[in-house]
Amino acid sequence: MQNKEQNRTTGVSKAIKVGLFQFEPVFGEIRQNVEHVTDSLANIKADLIVLPELCTTGYQFKSPNEVKFLSEDISSSHAVNEFVKLCKDRNMYMVFGMAEGANGAFFNSALYTGPEGVIGVYKKAHLFFEEKFFFSPGNGGFPIFQQNGVYVGLMICFDWIFPEVARILALKGADIICHPANLVLPYCQQAMITRSIENGVFSLTANRIGEEKRGGKDALKFSGKSQVVDPRGNVLFRLGEEETVKVVEIDPAEARDKKITRHNDLMEDRLPELYGKLTKVSV
Amino acid sequence: MQNKEQNRTTGVSKAIKVGLFQFEPVFGEIRQNVEHVTDSLANIKADLIVLPELCTTGYQFKSPNEVKFLSEDISSSHAVNEFVKLCKDRNMYMVFGMAEGANGAFFNSALYTGPEGVIGVYKKAHLFFEEKFFFSPGNGGFPIFQQNGVYVGLMICFDWIFPEVARILALKGADIICHPANLVLPYCQQAMITRSIENGVFSLTANRIGEEKRGGKDALKFSGKSQVVDPRGNVLFRLGEEETVKVVEIDPAEARDKKITRHNDLMEDRLPELYGKLTKVSV
Repeated sequence: MQNKEQNRTTGVSKAIKVGLFQFEPVFGEIRQNVEHVTDSLANIKADLIVLPELCTTGYQFKSPNEVKFLSEDISSSHAVNEFVKLCKDRNMYMVFGMAEGANGAFFNSALYTGPEGVIGVYKKAHLFFEEKFFFSPGNGGFPIFQQNGVYVGLMICFDWIFPEVARILALKGADIICHPANLVLPYCQQAMITRSIENGVFSLTANRIGEEKRGGKDALKFSGKSQVVDPRGNVLFRLGEEETVKVVEIDPAEARDKKITRHNDLMEDRLPELYGKLTKVSV
Repeated sequence: MQNKEQNRTTGVSKAIKVGLFQFEPVFGEIRQNVEHVTDSLANIKADLIVLPELCTTGYQFKSPNEVKFLSEDISSSHAVNEFVKLCKDRNMYMVFGMAEGANGAFFNSALYTGPEGVIGVYKKAHLFFEEKFFFSPGNGGFPIFQQNGVYVGLMICFDWIFPEVARILALKGADIICHPANLVLPYCQQAMITRSIENGVFSLTANRIGEEKRGGKDALKFSGKSQVVDPRGNVLFRLGEEETVKVVEIDPAEARDKKITRHNDLMEDRLPELYGKLTKVSV
């Protein structure tokens, strides 16, 4: 994100390097997981790196007490401190998932950080499976953030299945959707191509890998295959199921051009007057 | 659609046979195209058959005069008469695309017909490319229709790229989205899998095949690959690029079960209070 005075409307910009770090967090070992990230990215050359959902704690909580114990207040979080330090050191931005404690409630959150510190927080709205027992749903909507002329929107994992989320981020002007995930269902990677095409945005899905089997719970197998998709649905890369750091150069300005034919614009052609509020309708 | 007293809420139903007829209309030859359909389906055993967009006229109009000449009023349309006769003869329902003239305006429409006649009309809202020069956009919204306990929603071709359309049809209660198409871009077939998954509905995309090259215009190549997708995103069949009639048995009740995990329901988990009106937002 080196281009300082980018013009939002003409979309003139320079290429930036965006990347993903796909790995397997160890459940409950925040310090170990954070150190693994900072070690793995110590020499990274990138402008923006996305990490998986709940990448500091692991995924499969067993009790509310465990959630309470492993959630961190952003202002005093070891993970946030270390990742901001890394952002400063590498002069880059990061999006990562963590268990957030805030005023006695607990959220499955994604943070957007840079050399300047914490820029934005998104608290996951659509909770998956047993997350409903352990986290409060975020009710702050779907925020986007701008740094150096690049507009970044955040969503987390299961949010993908609700087309409204990526739509809202795109309507707000996101060039890049950063999407930390812990995917167990097989649908998402393909669907994120649709999200990129229908909204004309880059999507960066950082999934985790490995299996979690915690006492009394079914084993969960995470599907990896983290990917970067461009605004026309081209998969710039898709990882396998191994730990990998990978970076690719993109031009965020490509997401400003919503024309998919000479006569069709993805956003201008929308007909909100026909869509109503997209609430349940009886016939 | 033989099951008479289906219970909408419990979703108890019987299997029905749905199918697609993928073919190449001859431009401007309505009688010939209609005869080709009625000949090809003369012995069909199905409950619901979907045909491509503008399947009676062909696609690439050159002038408003041509549109005027080839559009038909539904009440006096040769195509509608013949297809309703076919529905009576085979005791089935049909969805097909035609150029509709109505009160001096012209629409790219899809009709839903059965033994009882014309049941519903949808006038395409999102016009693709030069359709904008030849047709008026439909402003009647996105209707669904119910016959014998099966709820059918209609959308046409380019509507696929606007996630709002399939969403509205599903929110209204569509079990099956019938989707006549004349696809030239490569994205849609894969994206319709996402539409089925995110809404938990069957989608039946009937695309045309062949090429149209009309004087003074670029040649258009249509991609075929018509398909039926179930509510979990399984492709029940996808055709090639040859003329084909194909039927498959489905249970519409599968679209009533929106649970994708024990704790997640595609519709109940939506958060309309966070979505707003999905209009353009400034940040």
